[in-house]
Amino acid sequence: MSNPLAAEVHLITGGAGFIGVNLAAALLERGCNLVILDNFSRGSRANLGALADDPRVGVAQVDCSDAGAIEAGLTGFASLGTVTEIWHLAANSDIPAGIADPRIDLTDTFLTTFAVLQVMAARGIETLNFASTGAVYGDLGDVELRETSAPLEPISNYGAMKLASEVQIRAAVEAFLGRANIFRFPNVVGVPATHGVIYDFVGKLLADPSRLEVLGDGTQRKPYFHCDTLVEAMLFIRDRSALAYGVYNIGPSDAGVTVKWIAETVADVFGGEPEIVYGRENRGWVGDVPKFRYNTDKLRQLGWTAEIGSQASVRKAIEQIVALRRS
Amino acid sequence: MSNPLAAEVHLITGGAGFIGVNLAAALLERGCNLVILDNFSRGSRANLGALADDPRVGVAQVDCSDAGAIEAGLTGFASLGTVTEIWHLAANSDIPAGIADPRIDLTDTFLTTFAVLQVMAARGIETLNFASTGAVYGDLGDVELRETSAPLEPISNYGAMKLASEVQIRAAVEAFLGRANIFRFPNVVGVPATHGVIYDFVGKLLADPSRLEVLGDGTQRKPYFHCDTLVEAMLFIRDRSALAYGVYNIGPSDAGVTVKWIAETVADVFGGEPEIVYGRENRGWVGDVPKFRYNTDKLRQLGWTAEIGSQASVRKAIEQIVALRRS
Repeated sequence: MSNPLAAEVHLITGGAGFIGVNLAAALLERGCNLVILDNFSRGSRANLGALADDPRVGVAQVDCSDAGAIEAGLTGFASLGTVTEIWHLAANSDIPAGIADPRIDLTDTFLTTFAVLQVMAARGIETLNFASTGAVYGDLGDVELRETSAPLEPISNYGAMKLASEVQIRAAVEAFLGRANIFRFPNVVGVPATHGVIYDFVGKLLADPSRLEVLGDGTQRKPYFHCDTLVEAMLFIRDRSALAYGVYNIGPSDAGVTVKWIAETVADVFGGEPEIVYGRENRGWVGDVPKFRYNTDKLRQLGWTAEIGSQASVRKAIEQIVALRRS
Repeated sequence: MSNPLAAEVHLITGGAGFIGVNLAAALLERGCNLVILDNFSRGSRANLGALADDPRVGVAQVDCSDAGAIEAGLTGFASLGTVTEIWHLAANSDIPAGIADPRIDLTDTFLTTFAVLQVMAARGIETLNFASTGAVYGDLGDVELRETSAPLEPISNYGAMKLASEVQIRAAVEAFLGRANIFRFPNVVGVPATHGVIYDFVGKLLADPSRLEVLGDGTQRKPYFHCDTLVEAMLFIRDRSALAYGVYNIGPSDAGVTVKWIAETVADVFGGEPEIVYGRENRGWVGDVPKFRYNTDKLRQLGWTAEIGSQASVRKAIEQIVALRRS
């Protein structure tokens, strides 16, 4: 498909974060102008690299839970053109921090969505692409998670506030919003990572190459997806879905990999044969879902199939992160 | 059962509202002391009547979306004893108002829940009873609504913020809360009503006894429950449910009554044979679900069955409202 987005202007909230900068690069490649608003709590100008200097990109530090601040940010980049579409990625990404203080997910995960919707209503922006999460499913045990799985009982404030965002978006579609694509992300790996199990393991080995301590007993199994593949799927859904409110699981259809496998692969790529030490519990922290498996039929029926699964995604990310953190 | 709640102290948020005052009367009858916090936007001291003068009851005007204000309210009534249980009923109850301005449901329906949970965490209050709603189901068409029905796609901000409240409570149960009972209310009728279809119809006939104009075509069919019966079910679940997080539909198991039937019954009770004039659409406003039917097996399996259904509930409420508004 040739530049379906050429000359369009899109806003990415949280666009300086891990997934945001990968999405930004893909949208620029398709000919978009971009406004990137980010509070730089996890995201950073450093993440953006050369993107920040591209004349088609406007970057500003904005608290996206404040509709007035988003408005001001958009007004500041009016010369790029009129924003017609929003990719709302801004959120707290530190689940344990959100459990310790629920106000973090209230503000950064939910009120950002609320503010984005206020801006869309005020400006008549029709299309919203929203980064949701498998955490909305909570702990449904061994069932394969479909978009219609129930009951949805998230066990973290992060999952709760992502689900609250989804349903507020759903009500907005009823009232004024033209279209919303809801992407339920799996665990996403790649660079520039700021957190996550691989990032933690590599950090531990950099500090002490002889020993790798694992939170939990290592049996937790989850699907992982590389961010390159994730962004490809997001764009595919954005281009092809005909639903006014379309919820899509994005992820591999395999059963995922265990934390033990990740630890061993990090140790293998890192080298030096560290001792790997496991904890006793089968979950790392309150609110962590020990295992889940996605059903991705809906996305496949739309015409998209992942080229790589959990193992290849994780290995690719490990190699990137080790290379980057050693450099 | 003899006074299972004697000597306990409970907080009712929104306790001066329509359902709140009925619940308060029932809890007092069982020997509870009560703190009632209400912003008096829909609720009022007048609703409370003689309850407000009961020495076992403390009443204060408090914005329950403000955790500090709830704290201050509780501290002010410390002489009644230590609150061990909360009935969180405070919410915006005007669905169209919440669609016109989403901040109303954000603040009054969701942030009240968030603040209540903050207070429960800070004070170690273990048990929460929450007034949720059938509006969380959205418009699932002709299916019988079970607690596990999916997908949950509320079409009003009210429904969205009630569902957001449910899932935030669910995450709190994972983190710190001892127990939460989630009551999914049907349309509730009775006195002292402040809004709703019966209240509107009676008001119209008081203004012009010759003509009753109906919003919509009258075919909307919904289950209704009298507040006396609702409160009975809430207390039953509170006493009997063994679930840490228990979601229960409360309502009649019948298919409900149509707006047309309500209009005719109001006209019948009111007398004078008014002309009834219908609109064309099958819904009254954006965000109104045209029909729904509850499955109440879960509540029945717990051991409780409604003694009256939709027709008897509505007729009882009509008679009460007509008598009250004519007096």
